[in-house]
Amino acid sequence: MSQAPIKDNEVDIVIGALRSDLSSFFNEWRAYFSRFHLIIVKDPDLKEELKIPDGFNLNVYTKNDIDRIVGSTSISFSGYSCRYFGFLVSKKKYIISIDDDCHPAKDNKGNFVDAVAQHIENLTTPATPFFFNTLYDPYRDGADFVRGYPFSLRNGVNCALSCGLWLNLADLDAPTQALKPSERNNRYVDAVLTVPTAALLPVSGINIAFDREAVGPALFPALRLAEEGKVRWETIEDIWSGMCVKVICDHLGLGVKTGLPYVWRTDRGDAVESLKKEWEGVKLMEEVVPFLQSTMLPVTAATAEDCVVEMAKTVKQQLGSSNPVFGHAADSMLEWVRIWKTMVSRPS
Amino acid sequence: MSQAPIKDNEVDIVIGALRSDLSSFFNEWRAYFSRFHLIIVKDPDLKEELKIPDGFNLNVYTKNDIDRIVGSTSISFSGYSCRYFGFLVSKKKYIISIDDDCHPAKDNKGNFVDAVAQHIENLTTPATPFFFNTLYDPYRDGADFVRGYPFSLRNGVNCALSCGLWLNLADLDAPTQALKPSERNNRYVDAVLTVPTAALLPVSGINIAFDREAVGPALFPALRLAEEGKVRWETIEDIWSGMCVKVICDHLGLGVKTGLPYVWRTDRGDAVESLKKEWEGVKLMEEVVPFLQSTMLPVTAATAEDCVVEMAKTVKQQLGSSNPVFGHAADSMLEWVRIWKTMVSRPS
Repeated sequence: MSQAPIKDNEVDIVIGALRSDLSSFFNEWRAYFSRFHLIIVKDPDLKEELKIPDGFNLNVYTKNDIDRIVGSTSISFSGYSCRYFGFLVSKKKYIISIDDDCHPAKDNKGNFVDAVAQHIENLTTPATPFFFNTLYDPYRDGADFVRGYPFSLRNGVNCALSCGLWLNLADLDAPTQALKPSERNNRYVDAVLTVPTAALLPVSGINIAFDREAVGPALFPALRLAEEGKVRWETIEDIWSGMCVKVICDHLGLGVKTGLPYVWRTDRGDAVESLKKEWEGVKLMEEVVPFLQSTMLPVTAATAEDCVVEMAKTVKQQLGSSNPVFGHAADSMLEWVRIWKTMVSRPS
Repeated sequence: MSQAPIKDNEVDIVIGALRSDLSSFFNEWRAYFSRFHLIIVKDPDLKEELKIPDGFNLNVYTKNDIDRIVGSTSISFSGYSCRYFGFLVSKKKYIISIDDDCHPAKDNKGNFVDAVAQHIENLTTPATPFFFNTLYDPYRDGADFVRGYPFSLRNGVNCALSCGLWLNLADLDAPTQALKPSERNNRYVDAVLTVPTAALLPVSGINIAFDREAVGPALFPALRLAEEGKVRWETIEDIWSGMCVKVICDHLGLGVKTGLPYVWRTDRGDAVESLKKEWEGVKLMEEVVPFLQSTMLPVTAATAEDCVVEMAKTVKQQLGSSNPVFGHAADSMLEWVRIWKTMVSRPS
């Protein structure tokens, strides 16, 4: 029932470099990354030269490349948004992207997890968004569809997005991180599940993979907070984009999975510093979620590009007046699709 | 954020007795059951006398009691349906019900699981049906709401139904059981999650708990297959009722959780014998699922009783002509509500 196996050369691993010395990061991930082509995008705000160990097949992109290839644009590629440039320049079917402060995690048996292999498995086995299977992913060894699961839905649909999780430091928002600085996630939940159609989830960009051909145009750095910093809990671009992707996947009949693989995350940044900032992102969610829960895309929107354009129009219309950040996000989404189309038509 | 703790005397454990010798069953569950009041309902088709060890606070109900209390009715309480009589006669707020061929399961550390305590925890901590939390149950120790989760939804809603899972022999349908007789579920997934609103799931009656006051009227033995036997994989009454409960919970703003606790299940029945029968249940699901996915209850339906009556009407109207089993199910649902109301008005 699964698709043809993915060849190594159908995958790009995209890493946004927010710090210069990536030696230990790459050495820790060597066993899992070295078979694949890597795209490293240097945060345009980062001045120092990158330190990356030998032995990887990679291309590094810097501010110069961004300026040269994208040209004048309203989209900002600074901070965590730099990785999205890698999604643009990739020519591969699949993208895996992991934050540069993540380490390989261990499973319940103490074995290191191959996050790349797990993401690929998630993307190449079907998703089951139209009915919930209580034993989680029915395609896993030992699992199955349970009594009552309609046979007509057991072939599933293509999976377009695989959302991985985090051990140790979880992906919390700024207030939670500031209020519970010592909270740690130690529970390794050995499951992958399809998020049901019509249900929204907060997609974290820390540890994800996706089918670039199917939904690449919907993974964009569009919603940027005024006081956004260089720590994850101050960003929201992935949450916004992720909810848009989920709406688009539901519309196009594609699946979104969450669960395995885990990565191990350690602290970066000062949670107490974040306390001083306005929690703009938190407030925005109160408007974004009901809006996206009721967004209906027209049947004529048949590709991810079409869907993004339609969503951008609706965002502008319905949220544009409540906060300028939404108007800017809508403009960035349209701009993203414009750039994406240019890139697709460029020769490799 | 959780509700007041449940007192032991607010819970009935209901066991449908499909075999006469329950000694080992009760001895294995003694540590978890003995604090609570138990309702044992003997399958009216079972002739031999029940063997139940001493040391439990229980009431046993037999065919005589069913005839005396319910009187003449079109509802059949035979086989797995006998337990539903226990739901009727209970006066408690919460019901926990476990099949009599289940054993206590062990967790990943090798410790026996207290299924009763876990069901109670599921029912007394909020559910979060309106937005998916990627770290599963946010109220568990060490877990939390993740970045992007709207603050306005973090109080959650009351949980009305807790669906537990199965290790060893999973709850498969007849064809799967017959075709894969040696398939076993060995994966203990240490998670509880809320099934999102609008998503349907196949609720298994093997290992469940519910808020009887909130949704008791919606747990009924209404859909009975012509060739239904005394093995789980030949029944579907819980699947039908479970999907109705889910639609009703979505309508009333209540939550449904699935995951922990696990029970250990061993074989009962001959899968090859099942191969000879028609797989009527499997075929019915193809009609039931799209029907229930599109069922909208009127805003005037404000209680579970109201909702069941409305659903019965729609079932009769829309499915009644396609298969007599649906017409009979609709009649049984109305009959169930009638009996339920009589029971509620009876003095304890």
